[in-house]
Amino acid sequence: MPRAKVVFIGAGSAVWSSTIVVDFILTPSLYGSEIVFVDINEERLNLIYDFARRYAREYKADYVFRKTTDRREALENADFVINAALAKGHSYYEVMRQISEANGYYRGINSVEWNMVSDYHTIWGYYQFKLALDIARDVEEKAPDAWLLLIANPVFELTTLLSRMTKVKVVGLCHGHLGYLDLVKTLGLDPHEVEVETLGFNHVIWLTKFKYRGEDAYPLIDEWVERKSEDFWRFWRENQWNPFDIQMSPAAIDMYRVYGLFPIGDTVRGGTWKYHWNLETKQYWYGPSGGPDSEIGRQVYYMYLDMRLNEIKKALANPSRPLADTVEPVKSSESIVPLIDSIVNDRRATYQVNILNKDSIPGIPSDVAVEMPAIVDSKGVHRMSFRELPKKIYNLVLRPRLLRAEWAIEAFLEGGRDFLFEWLIIDPRTKSTEQVNKVIDETLRIPGNEEMAEHFK
Amino acid sequence: MPRAKVVFIGAGSAVWSSTIVVDFILTPSLYGSEIVFVDINEERLNLIYDFARRYAREYKADYVFRKTTDRREALENADFVINAALAKGHSYYEVMRQISEANGYYRGINSVEWNMVSDYHTIWGYYQFKLALDIARDVEEKAPDAWLLLIANPVFELTTLLSRMTKVKVVGLCHGHLGYLDLVKTLGLDPHEVEVETLGFNHVIWLTKFKYRGEDAYPLIDEWVERKSEDFWRFWRENQWNPFDIQMSPAAIDMYRVYGLFPIGDTVRGGTWKYHWNLETKQYWYGPSGGPDSEIGRQVYYMYLDMRLNEIKKALANPSRPLADTVEPVKSSESIVPLIDSIVNDRRATYQVNILNKDSIPGIPSDVAVEMPAIVDSKGVHRMSFRELPKKIYNLVLRPRLLRAEWAIEAFLEGGRDFLFEWLIIDPRTKSTEQVNKVIDETLRIPGNEEMAEHFK
Repeated sequence: MPRAKVVFIGAGSAVWSSTIVVDFILTPSLYGSEIVFVDINEERLNLIYDFARRYAREYKADYVFRKTTDRREALENADFVINAALAKGHSYYEVMRQISEANGYYRGINSVEWNMVSDYHTIWGYYQFKLALDIARDVEEKAPDAWLLLIANPVFELTTLLSRMTKVKVVGLCHGHLGYLDLVKTLGLDPHEVEVETLGFNHVIWLTKFKYRGEDAYPLIDEWVERKSEDFWRFWRENQWNPFDIQMSPAAIDMYRVYGLFPIGDTVRGGTWKYHWNLETKQYWYGPSGGPDSEIGRQVYYMYLDMRLNEIKKALANPSRPLADTVEPVKSSESIVPLIDSIVNDRRATYQVNILNKDSIPGIPSDVAVEMPAIVDSKGVHRMSFRELPKKIYNLVLRPRLLRAEWAIEAFLEGGRDFLFEWLIIDPRTKSTEQVNKVIDETLRIPGNEEMAEHFK
Repeated sequence: MPRAKVVFIGAGSAVWSSTIVVDFILTPSLYGSEIVFVDINEERLNLIYDFARRYAREYKADYVFRKTTDRREALENADFVINAALAKGHSYYEVMRQISEANGYYRGINSVEWNMVSDYHTIWGYYQFKLALDIARDVEEKAPDAWLLLIANPVFELTTLLSRMTKVKVVGLCHGHLGYLDLVKTLGLDPHEVEVETLGFNHVIWLTKFKYRGEDAYPLIDEWVERKSEDFWRFWRENQWNPFDIQMSPAAIDMYRVYGLFPIGDTVRGGTWKYHWNLETKQYWYGPSGGPDSEIGRQVYYMYLDMRLNEIKKALANPSRPLADTVEPVKSSESIVPLIDSIVNDRRATYQVNILNKDSIPGIPSDVAVEMPAIVDSKGVHRMSFRELPKKIYNLVLRPRLLRAEWAIEAFLEGGRDFLFEWLIIDPRTKSTEQVNKVIDETLRIPGNEEMAEHFK
């Protein structure tokens, strides 16, 4: 028996998967485990498999790696299932985005208040929802005791959906909450002396606790805003190479001012159309790139993925040079491997997780996935209790975000054109009923959308 | 001691109040009661007072009528308080509407999905909310055991607000649910053989039960839609003198098709912008008047009020002719007087009321006012239990409507410009952030809005 059997679905996204592979390799307490890579793209599957085997060999890491395109076969007796799969890949959604934009929906009909993230596919994520639910049902059948670690977005909707529809132990994970480290760094604080808590929904989390050396550190943010933000932004506007570098952007500070708590990580990418009307607006709030979800930011991101993938391919093609020269042997900040370690080896620790609320955060329904810290050990994931979020955030942010989540989930479960229509008829980009009908028709007519068209007929 | 002391606040709206007065006069079981009319407009107050005294005299109805402009004095020892007051009157809201329309917000910033009713003032109803809460607090102090019958709109928001913020027994009443009678008549059914139940929020209620002679009558609606609606509409389009005659309009049938249950009464006036983009759209869905909430329908309504008021004035000026010639001595379909009668004389009956849900309708929060049938007797108002509303109505209609209600309530309780901004930034009529800021600035600059401007600063 291996120490643990981990099935890694959608492992073919090698840029991201390689990070997790390195995390495994740098975690000796999991040695002896079996890791099964699954992807429908064989070329990409071979890439990550070859990468893992060689890196492990170079590091003398004792793992059994396997690869397969047969998900159901792989799942047999799994202890952990990582779902990182994006159905149909980025390019498919870019085609839908183009059609949206031709009909007056900048950045696509999927982008709405508090979900402006370009690859957080909700209303048009039919295939993504279906894949995630199919995987969860396979887990339920083949490995009912396994932990399903959901990395695939939309983590908020999918964690809620899978937890409601299956008996599987689903935990959604997202590194966005680490955005607080940018805040800490910018304020010039020692991260080891900081105590933070971030709560909300995935991609909509707020700094509910921020202490430095035992004292409330929010005044330090206020001071920074008043004294240093202008200078910071001047420099930042000239040097924002990374479109994801927006934790301290004017958008974040404005959200803090309006909603009363500091928005953390991907939360800053959200908000209403106030921050997103067009590229110019985005650039005002998110810097010259317009942030990671502008047409520029997105291209930079795809280029980065291509570049990194090519580096990995090149490294693999050169057997004489250690892989560690290309992919650093440094543990990442992703929590997947540490969390598996905590469960397998009873290493009790706190993780930021997405799980059904079940009264952990007052005021949010029981059956909705919240993002919050939880304690993890060999007995599982243990909820804690938190104070209610401030009313302003609850009413103006979480409520509308939850509305869209419930709509997207119902649209997926029930089908029918009405859900798409209702989604759009309340959209500020909508100018007429005809526009709504036209964008729906054209979206559903895209080659590859036949099944989705049938679902939404 | 009088049989009951009823304080009628906002009684100066004589057209409507005269109906209630006649109901009292035609209800001998309440004779011996004291009815105190309250209004800040003395001229209008005198009018309803004179009307009541003379009508009672002509009918030998034994009531003690009083009048006062001093609300607090009137409330002492009240058993029932009717709040029918509209703070600042219709013309004030028309001024705000004009400013909205000049900024691209057809029918005003107050009109949003599922609240398109032109005098259901929520986000711009600051003075109305304040007046209603002030009255409720006066009731709490001066007549803590009294029933507060809330007729003043917005019944949904105000019933929720007053029930949360005071200990007063608040019951919101609205005759809209009687729209089912139009349906019954149009289908050619005998109203005495019909069993109905309508549930939801005020102005957003749905026919959850519809039986004729013990059998499900929904198929009769379907048959009417298929076979008779086209002919009906042809005739109706040429004869729609009353803009409120929309219970069987294409809008109602479309809502039924989309949401799955038949919308009753003012519900038909709601919906998304699909039914309301402009006059032309409204006319398509609501007939040549564009319905009661178009620019035409509203003018017709104001003209009707003026005309009726003049008739009452003329009748009062002519002491030789019985008032009954002008205002028929027929009980109205309003439930206020029968409900008071039920409580005072223990006449157990079922009424359509708006009260906090408290688990009567599953899925809707406890502390939100729902509209539903309840049993009333001398012990009070007794909730019943109902089945959950269909998911489609819950998700696509009640959820977004509740979101707007909570926002309006929070905007009133908390104040601050952000609430107005957030209200508008998700509005389909909004094209830019500048537009939002401009309409807010101009609305708050209206003479008379000084206190509201301070509140939303």
